[in-house]
Amino acid sequence: MTKIKVGIAGATGYTALEVARLLMAHPEAEVVAATSRAEDGNTLAEVHPSLAGRCDVPIENLDAKTIAGKCDVVMCCLPHGASAETVHALVQHDVRVIDFSADFRLSSLEVYEKWYGVKHPWPERVGKTVYGMPEFFADEIATADVVANPGCYPTSAILPLSPLVKSGLIETTDIIVDSKSGVSGAGRSAKVATLYCETNESIAAYAVGSHRHGPEINDLVSRIAGAPVQTLFTPHLTPMDRGILSTIYVRKNGHSVDEMMQCLRDQYAGSPFVNVVDHLPATKHVAGTNYVQMTVRDCGDRAVLVCVIDNLAKGASGAAIQNMNVMFGKPETMGLA
Amino acid sequence: MTKIKVGIAGATGYTALEVARLLMAHPEAEVVAATSRAEDGNTLAEVHPSLAGRCDVPIENLDAKTIAGKCDVVMCCLPHGASAETVHALVQHDVRVIDFSADFRLSSLEVYEKWYGVKHPWPERVGKTVYGMPEFFADEIATADVVANPGCYPTSAILPLSPLVKSGLIETTDIIVDSKSGVSGAGRSAKVATLYCETNESIAAYAVGSHRHGPEINDLVSRIAGAPVQTLFTPHLTPMDRGILSTIYVRKNGHSVDEMMQCLRDQYAGSPFVNVVDHLPATKHVAGTNYVQMTVRDCGDRAVLVCVIDNLAKGASGAAIQNMNVMFGKPETMGLA
Amino acid sequence: MTKIKVGIAGATGYTALEVARLLMAHPEAEVVAATSRAEDGNTLAEVHPSLAGRCDVPIENLDAKTIAGKCDVVMCCLPHGASAETVHALVQHDVRVIDFSADFRLSSLEVYEKWYGVKHPWPERVGKTVYGMPEFFADEIATADVVANPGCYPTSAILPLSPLVKSGLIETTDIIVDSKSGVSGAGRSAKVATLYCETNESIAAYAVGSHRHGPEINDLVSRIAGAPVQTLFTPHLTPMDRGILSTIYVRKNGHSVDEMMQCLRDQYAGSPFVNVVDHLPATKHVAGTNYVQMTVRDCGDRAVLVCVIDNLAKGASGAAIQNMNVMFGKPETMGLA
Amino acid sequence: MTKIKVGIAGATGYTALEVARLLMAHPEAEVVAATSRAEDGNTLAEVHPSLAGRCDVPIENLDAKTIAGKCDVVMCCLPHGASAETVHALVQHDVRVIDFSADFRLSSLEVYEKWYGVKHPWPERVGKTVYGMPEFFADEIATADVVANPGCYPTSAILPLSPLVKSGLIETTDIIVDSKSGVSGAGRSAKVATLYCETNESIAAYAVGSHRHGPEINDLVSRIAGAPVQTLFTPHLTPMDRGILSTIYVRKNGHSVDEMMQCLRDQYAGSPFVNVVDHLPATKHVAGTNYVQMTVRDCGDRAVLVCVIDNLAKGASGAAIQNMNVMFGKPETMGLA
Repeated sequence: MTKIKVGIAGATGYTALEVARLLMAHPEAEVVAATSRAEDGNTLAEVHPSLAGRCDVPIENLDAKTIAGKCDVVMCCLPHGASAETVHALVQHDVRVIDFSADFRLSSLEVYEKWYGVKHPWPERVGKTVYGMPEFFADEIATADVVANPGCYPTSAILPLSPLVKSGLIETTDIIVDSKSGVSGAGRSAKVATLYCETNESIAAYAVGSHRHGPEINDLVSRIAGAPVQTLFTPHLTPMDRGILSTIYVRKNGHSVDEMMQCLRDQYAGSPFVNVVDHLPATKHVAGTNYVQMTVRDCGDRAVLVCVIDNLAKGASGAAIQNMNVMFGKPETMGLA
Repeated sequence: MTKIKVGIAGATGYTALEVARLLMAHPEAEVVAATSRAEDGNTLAEVHPSLAGRCDVPIENLDAKTIAGKCDVVMCCLPHGASAETVHALVQHDVRVIDFSADFRLSSLEVYEKWYGVKHPWPERVGKTVYGMPEFFADEIATADVVANPGCYPTSAILPLSPLVKSGLIETTDIIVDSKSGVSGAGRSAKVATLYCETNESIAAYAVGSHRHGPEINDLVSRIAGAPVQTLFTPHLTPMDRGILSTIYVRKNGHSVDEMMQCLRDQYAGSPFVNVVDHLPATKHVAGTNYVQMTVRDCGDRAVLVCVIDNLAKGASGAAIQNMNVMFGKPETMGLA
Repeated sequence: MTKIKVGIAGATGYTALEVARLLMAHPEAEVVAATSRAEDGNTLAEVHPSLAGRCDVPIENLDAKTIAGKCDVVMCCLPHGASAETVHALVQHDVRVIDFSADFRLSSLEVYEKWYGVKHPWPERVGKTVYGMPEFFADEIATADVVANPGCYPTSAILPLSPLVKSGLIETTDIIVDSKSGVSGAGRSAKVATLYCETNESIAAYAVGSHRHGPEINDLVSRIAGAPVQTLFTPHLTPMDRGILSTIYVRKNGHSVDEMMQCLRDQYAGSPFVNVVDHLPATKHVAGTNYVQMTVRDCGDRAVLVCVIDNLAKGASGAAIQNMNVMFGKPETMGLA
Repeated sequence: MTKIKVGIAGATGYTALEVARLLMAHPEAEVVAATSRAEDGNTLAEVHPSLAGRCDVPIENLDAKTIAGKCDVVMCCLPHGASAETVHALVQHDVRVIDFSADFRLSSLEVYEKWYGVKHPWPERVGKTVYGMPEFFADEIATADVVANPGCYPTSAILPLSPLVKSGLIETTDIIVDSKSGVSGAGRSAKVATLYCETNESIAAYAVGSHRHGPEINDLVSRIAGAPVQTLFTPHLTPMDRGILSTIYVRKNGHSVDEMMQCLRDQYAGSPFVNVVDHLPATKHVAGTNYVQMTVRDCGDRAVLVCVIDNLAKGASGAAIQNMNVMFGKPETMGLA
């Protein structure tokens, strides 16, 4: 058996480390290349001491042709804008790409450029790239050259909302998504705001009504459900490394919570990572895994959906491995269960 | 100057410790008695090692007459039901009481008995006890024999909501209160659910739509604002010792967020502990203090209120000291600022 | 291929959950039975919601014959004393056992009974059971009916100390082992001392000079190195879920730190989980894995050894899986790397 | 009564915030000026949102003459080197200074320049500045123009060690100081190493045998005890905001632990912040306070001292307030108890 050869572009961050960590346990894939301008010349293990003794892949400056020549697929963990440029170059050298940035997630170029405040480097590709959520798009992912890996918050909202909107069990307006994320979602660059003593023992709302994952949630739920939805999205920074819990307030549409639970169970019966549960899930229940737990509670006119994921796993690198498995014809759960 | 003599009934929990801690720094009050069935014979410092060398008050078994004879006021930190009985006995021996339980907070005996699942031991007093929020009820508190100290979650919701409802700036229906609390709110009894390894690195919703603080929020906002309101309240257990952040989703009523901010600023101009701020407050900004920070953000049809308190201070023991100051004619901020 | 059938006795604690979690990812072993008096009738997933949708193994009351009939090996996660009794019964029904308790770790019955304060239920077996550290005892483990799975603190001390003592590079007296452990080491029973608000934001020494793992360290290092050693062992409770860091102060014996590093590198060249590293390791570098990282620093007359493990993995359940692999002729790293 | 007018130089860090926080509660002192190059033009409350509504002192660029003109005393929270220059300038303008840096703590210019790697800007003052530990140097502090505020780790080691060395109860060699500190000790500048996700859920040793607080401990214990001592000092970064616990391994010198406890009790009978306790203290027992708790345990040839402080309070800003009280003839505990 030949293993899938994986490259990691932008190897210094937490999602890159999580990709490497997960691939250590994958029986049919391996990291063969890694890039970072800042760490050129070091190995992955030197940048991430948790890989010591396990991963001496050298980090090089990114050259699309060189990387494409070594890899079957590149996990592109670069910031938005920079990522699209790199994805473009990689695709031209015939390597498949899983893009962790938001550059190809949205349907609309206009919405992208408004919310991200940049000119898109590869505008003609926007709206034509599959969204990397195998629960809904496995067939397209299987043959894609580029997969837009989903955002972390959107994953925790799209999965519970989409089937309920599609089936007409809930109203499409006045949906409130109150999300709580661990600090790893803020990345690994040196900033006062994410120092230990700033975020520890504290919870805070941020970007109220103005976070970029808001339009991503609206876009994808609308696309999957075939009906335009509008959500009010509020993220919170929570004192923990990993995990997202989204508490979602929806208006019932004459249907019971039991029907909602059944709708979700039916939708995800064939999805190995999505568990519709009776208990109220906590982020710890899925920490370090690619699993999703969700439930529904009745509150009069409204129902409350609670969904938890690990933001670095199902919210980023785990989903990327899941996508890679689908792209290369492996069982979806390989190396993840 | 004679110091106010304070007794603490139910001295083993976190609110009792916080009362003792705060009184150490109070210039005109002192702990003179403490009770606990379980710790009878020990001193406060033996039960709470953070008081070592500072507080050798002996803990005794609660006898209402004895305690009443020593104290000007008793902080009653007992569980609901048990508390009302003790409050009744203490009042009969002519000592003033600040009751930390929910036994005298609600207007309606029926609502109390439904939500708390017990027969009230002193039913005729329900609905006739002042709610210990000096921001609204200082005059009644000043002369009260019994003060019902507010619940922690309710404090974080009543303070931002009441002025906005009263002034008609927001609608009274479909108010969503999504609250996040530190673990000390769950108390100090030995339970698996609040072990370190169960709650650390995890956030979870609990009692969705069924928490007892829901009716307290509705009751008090309705009372203060003079208009019946209905809220959907969801508490979350957050991995931190202290703090509550409430994210409150309200419908605008044809008024701007600027008007809401001004309304809150006007309301609390004379309230030394309530700060209406421009930044998005984090619980750490008020940790260990009696302060409240709140702000409002615009989100289309809705506005989002964010309010933070320290659940053990303004949410319990700090408010109790503030009430005590008012009851004994001291400046509201004495020992707290 | 037939999978190894694994039973878990005492299925409610953190080590049992970790065994189950690790076996989910093991390609050639599976949990087939679980026991707990308290949870008889539930499933593993009902007791541990992180297994929801993944593990419907029913929990039953322990009956040695029944369990032995279903399993190739039983992971015995019971308290000391109770464990030895169960191990005895299981062995009589011809099932192999990995015992997580301390009941068969020590060489001396007298030392055991003194430190554990109980009469040993199977005294003739004490001193005749292999210590489950494949780095030193793989051959005996391969054929053992019972393996005494090592203690967590001892693992972090025995691994760095033994080769250095054996080679004569350090003195055998006045060795100081200052260890820091995450809270999961204290177990999952309801106790005030391990409530979140007692241990969070705090570090404390406990059992100074009197912890039961002290004699285990002395016994094993002496046994492996062939020379009696005496250590002073101080454990500390650290506010984190997982991880042990041991800082070990040894007297140099006329040899350099370079020689010590080389000695450790030579010793562990063939040990897949032990990494001798140049950086100062943190517990996070091995969190969630079966890896060990260790290094040596020069401090004049003394050298300082620093060793990190994950207390639930290499310090308990990971080591157990490693032992199981050795017992059943699998590669040592199967399901762990 | 005229309040003591306090200036804070270097107002952006955690120690500066802690000074401001403590002075809010001080009845006879107040912050009147604050400086920071980076935050010139903002107020203290704008830099530290926890002061919102409570402290509108403007931050200005440091000009020694201007500051000296406004203040009775300046808390100088600048980095070493820069601090000595500023202290020099301030003293020339006749304002008293409490210096948080290490610039004037050591007896020897040579040791300073070796360990801090800089030319000292005011060398003639080295060795002639009182060390700000009122437990030993209150008389000199009372009249000092400059007080060298002690280091955090040194405070936790000097207080338990000095009396025992002085009284001859322990040996002066082979003293091992294993210290564990919360992350606030690492300051508030943006660095990857102190990001939340790097330090949370992890403990690590650092600067083993090479930390600058090692010579400070040796210098001060030797000075106070009148006997040269040599310690091996190892600091550890612990996942908590505040607190230092030092576990100190000393050789007994033919005396009992009871004698050591008595020696410490006698020494600190008149020191309001130092408590010699029977229990094993945890950092949480002193969190947020200026208190010190210490105890001694017997371990054969050695005794183990355990001492806890809050690194930001008694280890920095609390000690500074205590020193200020002594300098201005106030009760030592004013604003701190």
